[in-house]
Order: sequence, then C-alpha cells, then structure tokens
Amino acid sequence: MTNRRFAGSAAARPGGITTTEEFLAWFAERERAQEHAVTRIPFDRLSGWSFDPGSGNLAHSSGRFFTIEGLHVRTDREWRSSWDQPIMVQPEIGILGILVKEFDGVLHCLMQAKMEPGNINGIQLSPTVQATRSNYSRVHRGSGVKYLEYFTEPGRRRVLVDVLQSEQCDVVLHKRNRNMVVEVLDDGPPPDPDFCWVTLGLIQDLLSLPNVVNMDTRTVLSCLPVATDGDATAAPGRSRFAREVLHSLSSGAQPMWTTLEALRWLTDQRARRELVQERIPLARVCAGDWRRTSTEIHHRDGRYFKVIAVDVQSSARELRSWTQPLVAPVKPGFLGLLVARFDGVLHALMQARGAAGTLNGPELAPTVHCQPDNYAAVPERNRPRYFRELLSADPARVRYDVMLSEEGGRLYHAENRYRIVEAEPGYPRAVPPGYCWLTFHQLGQLLLHSNYLTVEARTLFVCAQAIR
Amino acid sequence: MTNRRFAGSAAARPGGITTTEEFLAWFAERERAQEHAVTRIPFDRLSGWSFDPGSGNLAHSSGRFFTIEGLHVRTDREWRSSWDQPIMVQPEIGILGILVKEFDGVLHCLMQAKMEPGNINGIQLSPTVQATRSNYSRVHRGSGVKYLEYFTEPGRRRVLVDVLQSEQCDVVLHKRNRNMVVEVLDDGPPPDPDFCWVTLGLIQDLLSLPNVVNMDTRTVLSCLPVATDGDATAAPGRSRFAREVLHSLSSGAQPMWTTLEALRWLTDQRARRELVQERIPLARVCAGDWRRTSTEIHHRDGRYFKVIAVDVQSSARELRSWTQPLVAPVKPGFLGLLVARFDGVLHALMQARGAAGTLNGPELAPTVHCQPDNYAAVPERNRPRYFRELLSADPARVRYDVMLSEEGGRLYHAENRYRIVEAEPGYPRAVPPGYCWLTFHQLGQLLLHSNYLTVEARTLFVCAQAIR
Repeated sequence: MTNRRFAGSAAARPGGITTTEEFLAWFAERERAQEHAVTRIPFDRLSGWSFDPGSGNLAHSSGRFFTIEGLHVRTDREWRSSWDQPIMVQPEIGILGILVKEFDGVLHCLMQAKMEPGNINGIQLSPTVQATRSNYSRVHRGSGVKYLEYFTEPGRRRVLVDVLQSEQCDVVLHKRNRNMVVEVLDDGPPPDPDFCWVTLGLIQDLLSLPNVVNMDTRTVLSCLPVATDGDATAAPGRSRFAREVLHSLSSGAQPMWTTLEALRWLTDQRARRELVQERIPLARVCAGDWRRTSTEIHHRDGRYFKVIAVDVQSSARELRSWTQPLVAPVKPGFLGLLVARFDGVLHALMQARGAAGTLNGPELAPTVHCQPDNYAAVPERNRPRYFRELLSADPARVRYDVMLSEEGGRLYHAENRYRIVEAEPGYPRAVPPGYCWLTFHQLGQLLLHSNYLTVEARTLFVCAQAIR
Repeated sequence: MTNRRFAGSAAARPGGITTTEEFLAWFAERERAQEHAVTRIPFDRLSGWSFDPGSGNLAHSSGRFFTIEGLHVRTDREWRSSWDQPIMVQPEIGILGILVKEFDGVLHCLMQAKMEPGNINGIQLSPTVQATRSNYSRVHRGSGVKYLEYFTEPGRRRVLVDVLQSEQCDVVLHKRNRNMVVEVLDDGPPPDPDFCWVTLGLIQDLLSLPNVVNMDTRTVLSCLPVATDGDATAAPGRSRFAREVLHSLSSGAQPMWTTLEALRWLTDQRARRELVQERIPLARVCAGDWRRTSTEIHHRDGRYFKVIAVDVQSSARELRSWTQPLVAPVKPGFLGLLVARFDGVLHALMQARGAAGTLNGPELAPTVHCQPDNYAAVPERNRPRYFRELLSADPARVRYDVMLSEEGGRLYHAENRYRIVEAEPGYPRAVPPGYCWLTFHQLGQLLLHSNYLTVEARTLFVCAQAIR
C-alpha cells in the first residue's frame, strides 16, 4: 500500500504544482535569496577549532561536531596493503529526514533548497531535515532546525522509513546517519520560502542534472519502500530500459542468486578480507606520507584528498557565520554500475568493497568505485576491474552519466561521475570472487537493513529508478 | 526443504546412534582421555605475552590473538554514564562451524568434545570447528585445525548458514565470529575420537544440563533456518508450551508488530542512545578505578570482572602447552526471557541493550541481562527492569532455568543463569520504550543478518526451542 503510493508519486510527472522549469526558477530565486560566501582560510583562522598540541588532532572546543584524526589501516590487499591517512571521526548519528504528505492523492516530499559550505553550487536540493546530533541538540547555539520535531517527537505522523546507513567510508570513520521518511497526517507544517513540496517523479527528473539533488536526498530516497513492489505495467511512456528496471524492482523478478545466497557470499567476503583500523594521532600521519601546511593537509604525492579550512557566511543557516575544516577530494571519482539481463531480469553487478572507515567490513559497492588518477602508478592487475569497460562503453549502452555531489557539510566540492551501463546481450554470468549479480528488488530488500549498500551504491540505485 | 530437514533432526530423539546416556558416557570418556590442567599464574610468567611499557596494554609478541587494552565509554545513561574499563580487542573474524550430514534420512551434526582453558568442566560440546584467524592461519605453529577445510575450501559441500554475529560485548570490543553450517555431500570426514555425529534433538536435550553445550555451539544453532518454518503439528509428545514455541517459530504466526516496525523501533533506539567508545591505554585504566597486581587486574570495588593469566597443559589441542590471559567475570550473570501469548501467538520480550564493546549500537538482548550484584548500590529506578519479576516468578511458570557457560577460550569460568518465564494470561502488552515483543519467527528472520541479537539472546532462542 505504502509501496504503491510511492510508485504513484514516482509516476506523477511534474504538472499542476511544479514543472521542472518552475522548479528551476524557484531554485534559482532561492539561490539568489540565500546570500552566502565560502572562503578558504588558513588553519590558524579557524575559530573554536584547533590542533591538539600532543596528538595533532583537529577538534572543536565543544568536543562535538567531528574531529580530524589519524588512521592506520592494515589490509590483506596485494597492493598498498597498509597505510596511514587522516580520517574524519564523527560517532554521532544524525538525521536525514524527508517529510511526505498526500496532495490530491499523490505523495509529495517536502524538499529544501539548502546551502552547505562544501557545495559546488551553493544550494542543492536537500531533505526536509539534515541535522547532526550536535546540530539538533544546538551545541552551536544557533536557531533550531526547522521541522525537526516531526522526526524526533511522537504526534500526528507515520514513520515510513527509519534505517541507519553508512557514509563515505574512505574518509569518514564508522559514520552512519538515520535515513527517515515521515508522513504528516495533519495539515502539515506552515510554508517556508526555502522549502517546497514536490513529487518523487520531479526529484527523479532533477537527477538528470549535475549537482542539483544532494547526497542526503539520494540516500533517503534509496530507502523508500518503492523498491519492494515495483510494477512495470504502471509506466506508460517509459523506455524499454526504464520498464526493465521497474520489473527488476518487483518481487516477482527471479534473481540469479537467492538473497540468502548473496548474504552468505557477503559474509565470506567480510570474513576473508582483513581490515584492521587503528586510530593514531594525526601528528603521526603528518610525520609520514602526509604534510600539514598552514592551509591544508595533503598527501606527498598530491593524491587522494586534502584537509582544508573555510570561513562561511550565510543568511539562511542556523548560524550566520562560522569556520570549519572540510575534506576536499583532489579529483572526481568514477562510480560505474554494470547492469545486464539474465533470464529476462535486469541484474546489477555489485562488488564487495572494503574502505578505510567502514564499520562492518566490505559493503556492496557499484561495479566500479575509484578515483582513476590514484591508480596511475599501480600495476595493471591491481587496478579497478571493469573500469575501462564502463568508461569506454558504447555510448548507445550508457543509460545514465551525470556528475553528482557528495555531502557538502563535511566534504568540499566532492563530485563524482555516476554512470550506468547496460551490458550487451549474452554478457557472461561468471564474475570474479568479489562480485555478485543482484536484482534491484534484492538491493531494495537489503536497504531495509543497515550497512549492506555503500552510499554510492544507494545513489546509483536511485538513479536507475530515475531513468525514463 | 532445508528447514524441514532441520526440524526433522530436532524431532529425532536420540535412538540407534546415541542416547543421552550413551552420549554422556562417551563425553566422560573423552574428558578422561584429554589430559589437561589449567593453572592461574602471575602475569610475569606469561610467555609471549607482555604489558607494553608505554600503554600498559597486554599483547602477544606476534601481534595476533587478542590484546587487553583500555576503553573509555561515554553514554547518555542516567546512572554511571561514563567509565573506563579493560577491554579485549580482537579484530579478527573467526569461524564457528558445524558440519552436518544425513544418516538414514536424518541430519546429524559433527560435534566435538573440546577443552578450553576457561571452561568450568574442562571439555564442553563444541562445534566441529572453532578457530580464530590466528588459529587457522597457524600463527602459533601448532597442528592444523581438524575439518577446517570444509569451511574454507570449495568442494563437495553445501553452505547452509554463514552469518557474522557479535559476542560478549561487555568485555570484548567489536568482536564478531562467522557462524557456519556446512553440509558434506560426500562420505564425510574420517572419524576422530574427540568428535561424534549427533542429531539436533540430542543437542537440545543436552541443553537441559548445566555447562555441557558450549556458547559457540549455541550461537551456531541459533542461526539454523529451522526458525523460519517451524511446524507445530510435527511435535507429538511435546508439552503445550513447546508446541507454542514451534507455532511462534512458523511463518504463519501473526506478530504484534511487523518486522519492519520492529526494525524502525531498533533504529530509533540505536540513534537516540549515545555511545562513544574511545580506546585508551590500559595503563590509564589501571591508574583510575582499576588496579593491576602481579596476578590480576580488578575493579577497586571488586565488581564486574578480572583479567587473569593461566598456564594450560593439554594433550588434545593444537599446542600441548601455552600461557594466556583470560577475562574472569566476578559473579554469574542473569539472563531472563519473558514470553507471553498475544492473540494466540507466543512473543518474547526483547530489550535494546547497549554494551561497552558493541559494534552497531544496541542489539536485541533478553528481557533481563545483568550481573545482579553490580546493581547493589544503584538507585532502584536504574536497576534492570523485570529482574525481580523473572527471578521470583512462580516456579510453575518457569520453562527453562539452567546454568550455561560463555566462551572458554577468552573467558574464565564465565557462567550465567539462563531462565525463560511464561507470563500469566492477560499480561499487559504495553512495555517501556526500550522493549519490544517479537515472535520467535521474527527473531529467526533477524538472525539471517548480523548484529541484531546478542549472543545471550541467541542462546535463549536456542534454549526455547529445546524445551520438550
């Protein structure tokens, strides 16, 4: 029932309420209305943040928000099996929440035009609420988070989704957020100029634009129960491929492996791979392969990412101005998903991928997840499999190819290329040991639980559903 | 199909192959055959293990096995919201595996009479394989682990269960083991005097005896798919309560809450409770509320647990003699499960319980999980709920009440009282926020995934099925 309502909201094209054009006009107007400026500053101009004289860790004087510390990682990989790196540590669980409500029988999502200091475009389309615990317990003494009470207090509401999911495990340690969808059963909240009600279909359309729909929106949408009961017949006007995605989402789609078999495969992957995470002082990292200057911490090869500091001025956030550190990837990454039809059902090729900051061992990642430049000096056999295949795929087989942003509250200008490629008919079933073909329905079932799909896999799961 | 075969093995009473009496005779004989002696020694007689001069952490020179370190814990609990404690750290994932095979159409489990240094009775009934990664990668250069290849190598076998589960999170940090059941499809392994094939029914019978079936056996059995398809009609001669457990195990049993609702409730519990785990030097712990003497590390109040060292001599292990540290609980704990019938279906009252070393936030624990003596000085309102109710329950309503041992490889003489109490008819449905009624079928479904049920909850799940 809930599933069908989400499917209805996805099928609803922007019409009476907002067309894509109307939406973009509103969005541009909000962009102009929210004055903001983000400026890089040297570390010694950070206010409230400082490097601990002993450990060299970068922390806020309140003990809240996050810290930048050091991590020693030991794995059983053949290439680069152990290393030290800076890592963002944020043990708090935040809330990413979308409020939904029916208008004229169609579910709408209350979305926010929200500025984050690391955003490429200033504002991006964000969930109703996006708040760390420090944030919503108001450690910084700013104004309260709008609409937060719908997610934290009982009342005239129904919780449709509430699940913890991981985030950016390459640079953040053990981070999880609560992905929530809550339906309001009363008249709903009063209007606010930075918020608007849109259908799921409109958000899906916006996923074809670069850097508009933010990561937090994508991960919350990935947990919607629409995945468990797709219905290919309810998609008039969609392409063959889009209808095949819907069929693969349906519970009737016959998978190559049962979900239990896939879970046993994942257990095997998690148990076989060694991953020892040892938190170490950031000072030790910066005495090794990383360098700390007055303005940034970077790897001596110029690869991976940097730690920087920014000054933020904003008219529309809980605080009007603040400074903070951010993690800035050096280059965009490549996230590629190969999908192929077996026995009439689309399957996505997932890899079990470990990452420095993972909580649970490897999670299911897209077929390819890499920053290509990081592998320039790496022996051929240790480079990411399937990368060249997906990068150089026949354009006629590329179903999705858009630059999307990662989280802008802690990452600076982090954008990745997300690409979905449909394999040629007759593509081989056999895959290397760390890979597994799963239907979209199976991915949706796994998303009812925590820590099965990486945030990038969740994004591609949502993008696949957005293809028309 | 697999489910039915396990149900058949559970229904099969010990007959031609071994009666309980025959089993106990064999077990006593193995106890005599396996010469072993475990002696407490001062720390300075540990060989290969030493306290790091700087951190005070206790570690093995190989860097493997486990370490004893310090942990600072910060929670949002009203009473004793933060503390330091010693913690066992073992990032490796070990294997707990039971080999099964059909004889005369009935599944049998290959069980081992195995000595562990911390065992109360010397030997206990253990899975076919019980091996840490250090163990099976033969860091200690002992002989190989028998039958290990069935769990690690492809071959004439079928993997029926393979899932990571947590262990003793109060004293071990982030520990998980791989729970495996593998069916051999060929003639099976050659016999070994310390191993025997028994039915699931026989193991269940042995669960009525104190300290015979070890923790590792119990956790592996808890993951058996029997839970997903129980059949109350196939239980002639069982008591009303036993048949109600089987009914609650079946997929047709109507739960009070859907599993998705229960998962959302657990997410809420995991997100609301604050748990910050900071690894600190053991020396800092021992400079605070804990004391390190030449023979043990103990809390200044004499509560909780001690860290001790032992010398082990054994004729039947991979090594004939070794020394190691162990964690010794000061007193037995109390694990109580309240079950009640609602709308004709038995439900178990589970609590979301955090623990110092938990990986994932609170897991589902039994209704009561405590060491009663630790609460002597604690205000009434902060003592464990339901403890007195279950301790002083009318004996006519107590369905299970047995002392069982925890893991003997790292814990010394750790035994707990496991008790199942059936509530009176008309018991209230309403429970405090941290509690939830679940059917046994729901618990079985959650056991397909990692980190939902504590090891103690898994034990009680198995004990409930063992009631005749």
